[in-house]
Amino acid sequence: VSRRLVESDLEALSIGAAILGTGGGGNPYIGRLRARELLRQGLTIELVSLEELDDDAQVTTVGGIGAPVVGIEKFEHGDECLRALRAIERVTGTKVDAVIPAEIGGANSMEPMITAAQAGLPVVDADGMGRAFPEVQMCTYYIYGHEPAPAALADDKGNQVVIQRVQDMYRLERLARLVAVDMGAAAGFAEKPMRGEFLKRYAVPNTVTQALELGEAVLTARRERRDPVEAVLERERGKLLFHGKIIDVRRELKGGFAVGSVRLDGLDDWRGQGGRIDIQNENLVFLRDDVVEACVPDLIIVLDVDTGMPITTEVLRYGQRVAVLALPCHPLLRTPQALEVVGPAAFGYHDVTYRPLELERTAHAIV
Amino acid sequence: VSRRLVESDLEALSIGAAILGTGGGGNPYIGRLRARELLRQGLTIELVSLEELDDDAQVTTVGGIGAPVVGIEKFEHGDECLRALRAIERVTGTKVDAVIPAEIGGANSMEPMITAAQAGLPVVDADGMGRAFPEVQMCTYYIYGHEPAPAALADDKGNQVVIQRVQDMYRLERLARLVAVDMGAAAGFAEKPMRGEFLKRYAVPNTVTQALELGEAVLTARRERRDPVEAVLERERGKLLFHGKIIDVRRELKGGFAVGSVRLDGLDDWRGQGGRIDIQNENLVFLRDDVVEACVPDLIIVLDVDTGMPITTEVLRYGQRVAVLALPCHPLLRTPQALEVVGPAAFGYHDVTYRPLELERTAHAIV
Repeated sequence: VSRRLVESDLEALSIGAAILGTGGGGNPYIGRLRARELLRQGLTIELVSLEELDDDAQVTTVGGIGAPVVGIEKFEHGDECLRALRAIERVTGTKVDAVIPAEIGGANSMEPMITAAQAGLPVVDADGMGRAFPEVQMCTYYIYGHEPAPAALADDKGNQVVIQRVQDMYRLERLARLVAVDMGAAAGFAEKPMRGEFLKRYAVPNTVTQALELGEAVLTARRERRDPVEAVLERERGKLLFHGKIIDVRRELKGGFAVGSVRLDGLDDWRGQGGRIDIQNENLVFLRDDVVEACVPDLIIVLDVDTGMPITTEVLRYGQRVAVLALPCHPLLRTPQALEVVGPAAFGYHDVTYRPLELERTAHAIV
Repeated sequence: VSRRLVESDLEALSIGAAILGTGGGGNPYIGRLRARELLRQGLTIELVSLEELDDDAQVTTVGGIGAPVVGIEKFEHGDECLRALRAIERVTGTKVDAVIPAEIGGANSMEPMITAAQAGLPVVDADGMGRAFPEVQMCTYYIYGHEPAPAALADDKGNQVVIQRVQDMYRLERLARLVAVDMGAAAGFAEKPMRGEFLKRYAVPNTVTQALELGEAVLTARRERRDPVEAVLERERGKLLFHGKIIDVRRELKGGFAVGSVRLDGLDDWRGQGGRIDIQNENLVFLRDDVVEACVPDLIIVLDVDTGMPITTEVLRYGQRVAVLALPCHPLLRTPQALEVVGPAAFGYHDVTYRPLELERTAHAIV
């Protein structure tokens, strides 16, 4: 059952994508305006589910890639991703049938919509993370064996670079990031096409719809003056970890990433408890009174308690009153081979053992 | 009249190339050993002149590219340039008929010989500089309009990057250098094939032969216990600028380049005079008593007075007794459009006006 996006979907999608961004992934706001402009010009954004996809369909990711911290906000010209898509078609001799997000969280939820509209292609309702992660290899496609080259980068000045062969997906990340930073810190990125059959096994399904519905839940709750945080938890099999006031924010730039931690003083049912969130662009680990309670690859989400809007790590600041939620990641991210790439040790937390988020005490039981 | 190189040619070529390296361009020694190995395996290195080249021949440059200071010495595996050549053939759909050096000065004199032997192709007796320069765009091919993309980089671990389109030749340099540095500071580099007809107009002719004969002149003089510096000057329409002892060397790393200056105290006929050479990897400007007497793109060459062997800028040191020679660059480097790219201002010497080297007082008149 394919779905054609309308203008009002874009707002919901951008809110849901920001929630799934788990504090990072860049701001989808500018992309949302560009996508709206394309819809107003009469172009269409059509979603197709993984089930609808032909096994032989050729599907390419497109997205922005840049300096991790600068993020995606530098995009102006607006056809970098389309240029990258055309380059990958040329270099692989493949006609692409559909595009798919690599990362539903943050700004890269919107880029595939824009490119799909420009190219007249559908968008597959799935992605490779079910959230945001900072690096290219942290994607189910590569974790489960998609070849990491060729991949193409393009900027708005006509520069195009094709990474033709790489020894592994980590090298793809390194080379692509390097070239993207030279391209003015934001480039369009398209990767080697994948077959529909592969995606049916290894893409995280229905995540565009998930983002849309999450965003709609927040918007509806706000309209109806209900608690948007509760609306998010009703929509997802998630867990409310903490209510608190931010009492300390430490953040520094390390290797291009915003690394740091945020301390919280408990409010409401959590009075007397201390919370801490460790961040590396995204929210990676949540600790209650210095005991790890949730960590990557599960999703740790910080919402403004009043508006239900997600707060990205770069705008966390002293005095904010926030709700901390955790959502379980998709099972594809919990296998041993995935945890090697996206588990806590992959982010340098060698002392933290990943334990899948426990949901027996659900949000409903707590609230 | 084509010429097939024999083992003893390689020593002469490496000496001549080091002289034409004007202090930079990397050390051709390791490449010479690798080329010798290939000859011993029965492979051949065949020179063809520009005149012999078919107008429609497809000719590609190959060479090493890396961190400017690390230079070319990291090459170990030995087929990076061949891999880059194959990549450029693939991406352009062109069968390459011959290779040509981009830069006869330094290590990149030897790389085309090695690749030619490996690929079974001839080497064109010409190059794009007639000397060494530090950057890709400083090449007659680009100065006179060769398209700066596609270009391919390859390392010894199987990584390959194709720069598919670039806005200009400066961007090619920047992107290629960036990728090369990531590839462990030395990569094989091959550029878009050029037609024979184009090269007949814009390549600096006969420079492989020139390097060979220069090297032979030094070797012969040493064998016959004649002054090798004089032998170089006899062979070239050059000028002996100075004899002196190095009394000060200042060198620092700036943007990856070794930048600095060397002060000389005059010896022999130059007693009482002060000399100075300003360097940026290569010897760029020679001043006598603080007055500019020679500058890029003309060649400034520092030779050991006793052995006649060229001294590269990185091994200049206090106490060395050296001869400073200047050779006129090829007329293709003296046009206004060339001077924009390789004249003193292109190296930041905005106060220095290029005046073609005066040869009326030739070396013979002085010595």
